[in-house]
Amino acid sequence: MAKDGFVASITRQSEDFPGWYNDVVLKAQLADYSPVRGCMIIRPYGFAIWESMRDELDRYIKRTGHDNVYFPLFVPRSLLEKEAEHVEGFNPQVAWVTHAGGEELSEWLAIRPTSEALIAEVVKDWIQSYRDLPLLMNLWNNVVRWELRTRLFLRTTEFLWQEAHTFHATEQEAADEVALGLEGYRRVSEDWLAIPVIAGRKSPAETFPGAVYTLAVEAMMRDKRALQAGTSHMLGQNFARSAGIEFLDRDNQRKSPWGTSWGFSTRMVGATIMAHGDDSGLVLPPNVAPHQVVVVPIFRDEEGRTAVSGAVTGLEAAFAAVQTASGPLRWKVDWREESPGFKYNHWELRGVPYRLEVGPRDVAAGQAVLVRRLDRVKEAIPLQALAAELPARLAAYQAAVFASALDFRTANTHHVDSYTDFRRVLEEKGGFLLAPWCGEAACEGQVNTETGATIRVIPSDGPDETGKCIIDGRPSERRALFARAY
Amino acid sequence: MAKDGFVASITRQSEDFPGWYNDVVLKAQLADYSPVRGCMIIRPYGFAIWESMRDELDRYIKRTGHDNVYFPLFVPRSLLEKEAEHVEGFNPQVAWVTHAGGEELSEWLAIRPTSEALIAEVVKDWIQSYRDLPLLMNLWNNVVRWELRTRLFLRTTEFLWQEAHTFHATEQEAADEVALGLEGYRRVSEDWLAIPVIAGRKSPAETFPGAVYTLAVEAMMRDKRALQAGTSHMLGQNFARSAGIEFLDRDNQRKSPWGTSWGFSTRMVGATIMAHGDDSGLVLPPNVAPHQVVVVPIFRDEEGRTAVSGAVTGLEAAFAAVQTASGPLRWKVDWREESPGFKYNHWELRGVPYRLEVGPRDVAAGQAVLVRRLDRVKEAIPLQALAAELPARLAAYQAAVFASALDFRTANTHHVDSYTDFRRVLEEKGGFLLAPWCGEAACEGQVNTETGATIRVIPSDGPDETGKCIIDGRPSERRALFARAY
Repeated sequence: MAKDGFVASITRQSEDFPGWYNDVVLKAQLADYSPVRGCMIIRPYGFAIWESMRDELDRYIKRTGHDNVYFPLFVPRSLLEKEAEHVEGFNPQVAWVTHAGGEELSEWLAIRPTSEALIAEVVKDWIQSYRDLPLLMNLWNNVVRWELRTRLFLRTTEFLWQEAHTFHATEQEAADEVALGLEGYRRVSEDWLAIPVIAGRKSPAETFPGAVYTLAVEAMMRDKRALQAGTSHMLGQNFARSAGIEFLDRDNQRKSPWGTSWGFSTRMVGATIMAHGDDSGLVLPPNVAPHQVVVVPIFRDEEGRTAVSGAVTGLEAAFAAVQTASGPLRWKVDWREESPGFKYNHWELRGVPYRLEVGPRDVAAGQAVLVRRLDRVKEAIPLQALAAELPARLAAYQAAVFASALDFRTANTHHVDSYTDFRRVLEEKGGFLLAPWCGEAACEGQVNTETGATIRVIPSDGPDETGKCIIDGRPSERRALFARAY
Repeated sequence: MAKDGFVASITRQSEDFPGWYNDVVLKAQLADYSPVRGCMIIRPYGFAIWESMRDELDRYIKRTGHDNVYFPLFVPRSLLEKEAEHVEGFNPQVAWVTHAGGEELSEWLAIRPTSEALIAEVVKDWIQSYRDLPLLMNLWNNVVRWELRTRLFLRTTEFLWQEAHTFHATEQEAADEVALGLEGYRRVSEDWLAIPVIAGRKSPAETFPGAVYTLAVEAMMRDKRALQAGTSHMLGQNFARSAGIEFLDRDNQRKSPWGTSWGFSTRMVGATIMAHGDDSGLVLPPNVAPHQVVVVPIFRDEEGRTAVSGAVTGLEAAFAAVQTASGPLRWKVDWREESPGFKYNHWELRGVPYRLEVGPRDVAAGQAVLVRRLDRVKEAIPLQALAAELPARLAAYQAAVFASALDFRTANTHHVDSYTDFRRVLEEKGGFLLAPWCGEAACEGQVNTETGATIRVIPSDGPDETGKCIIDGRPSERRALFARAY
């Protein structure tokens, strides 16, 4: 575990991105390593960021008619193995409970890597008729996938997430639900985390084990790599058939329902760090920032302290009534016995959108100095006007963080039409590459083996554009989005 | 798993309390059994009740300065075994992961039965100085304790809970924190769940393994048994010393911090059922009820339907603006194609506080019939007045549910001064027995062995009252609360 203490300078983002990332996570006290390999501890500041995105997504999930429920942590081995592709995909990553209550178990229990298999078995008893459909459920829980190489938030043996599981009477309803789940992830990513995403369909190689198809939203990090921000799966009738779920439809026929599942995890805390941060640390969008404004009182003597303290008390009263897009204004006054410079670094590292410097001379002039974390723009602002202006300023800041990330992605997205160009651009520039692809797994596999890039999605809003696959020259209807990815 | 379908009548509470409880849980669709022995599935209605109490407790926890965090599910065997009493208390109930990622693990991993051992090990690196104290953390998570006999919500192998873990520079601060945790449980139990509780200290036999002392709040169920509604533990320096946590205090001395932990779990959903229900099913206090009002439209023909529908639309508009003590009014209109009688049973079983029956003749008279679930009092109420009156009516209903539970407890609490009386009253009447006890474990053990009753708490607001222990006649300073318990 990391020793807390003086905030040392952090690795420069441009020099060593992974080193920068680890420094930010540990020194901003977002998370820490644990005594169990690959498992993480989420500390208060990191957990507050997770709670913010979790609550926003939970509101969307409930508003769209889903109920929160809970299913057990344990999945009996025989159940996990019912859906053939599913077990093949997950078995190598499963952690097994073999002993409990002082005895060896007669059947091993998997710690859930995901809950499709268990849920299909249970809802078999709940779904008898078309009247029981759609069944729209969501779980907030922990899952375990044994990973060889782990990284805080991005890839951990245990992680927190949301998994929605739904069952429908028709294929079309299920397809609409898959899109609805993905739209939730797009909104949370773009409107809450200020991370622009590209939505589309996964290639067969990247499709969820047991699914008919998988949709995903993909984001670009500051090192130009891609990160999958959420996935939504059309399960078709696969799990329902394996579990033997049948319902009596309106036409008096017995049918298997169509299923979907979709998930969004704590790795999005890592995405928020990597999509916006800079050499000074985090840059948090106001909607998700635990503190939107931090006031740093500056004074040299007791007289100055008294003047500043009076002004801060007035601000506190005004701040208490401020409503922002993400609820009541979240602010803090940093009265610690440290130097102003120490505090500036402390809050810059933590990505607080606005810092307000209040000194005796400012107070005498009825003003304070407001500093924007994103671009460090400083301006003197009348103390009386501040509270009323903050909602609009925070909304503009949120938009500016999004615009900055979108500009970065646009500048680092390239259209290429040959494999030669593909390899050259990937090596020289990196980023997202839009290239024609024929749809064959062999071509995707060759690109991956030779360059490390994978198909992130076939973008759903990409124009139809006839071309030739960069590998085998066969016809392509639409460009695929390639990138090296987390 | 339970087959859903027609709501059959339920077992009578007075005839078979455990049968009644299981019927209510399954038929009101609060929870279901799972394919894993002892693990439960929490269905939407049950989970909404849990979310309500969870969110209310979370507000208290945050308001009193605690931060939510996350610690891993797995605890290495060597860590769990560091605190001697703790391991002795929990080892028999632990589930062990022995294989993961396709290999046998070199060290077995416990699924956390509780997180004291892991947290003490981790915070060792976070606590260097008195400035790092107090450290006030809370986790909402799942824990596993292998149970031989399980019952939905009340005793399950896996359960959801909140576990707070705090570290302090002085013993007094830790003692205050133990009391603060317990006060949160008292408030949620009494003010939210309408369950009166008795607070006090546990006897040594019931103290948390590894703790110096344990405080608890105890509630009476409708079968007169006791249920522990929450516990708060003074850990002293036990875990801190086992883990080697030391901090530099203001006086420049290295010291071990004092620790506390306190927990509140999904068994409180079971307590809410058993503290208030009756022969028709659940009786939910309005603060925790997923629906506070259900409107049942009644009509025989299309004309009647139109009239009722118009009135309901007006109600919906008025309801949308209503604020109650637990947030915006939660209401539902039941337009299903079932008979009114079916719907009355359906919502009575689910404990909805108010049912509003709206028929064409009512509408013509500008009124509707409001029925209180608690006592089935019916009254005609002007449609125009209803929305404005609901907050006060719901508050009064909440108070009435509490008063009813308190009356029941008072009527079933007995003072006894001899073991003969104790056994007679316990057999003939049951309930809570307040009796002198000398403080010796042997006397408590004898009572338990011979009668099945245990000491629930030594009530903290019980008067000092000199007496003689009902077993060995030695002096007693204060009565202990005995009961048969869940």
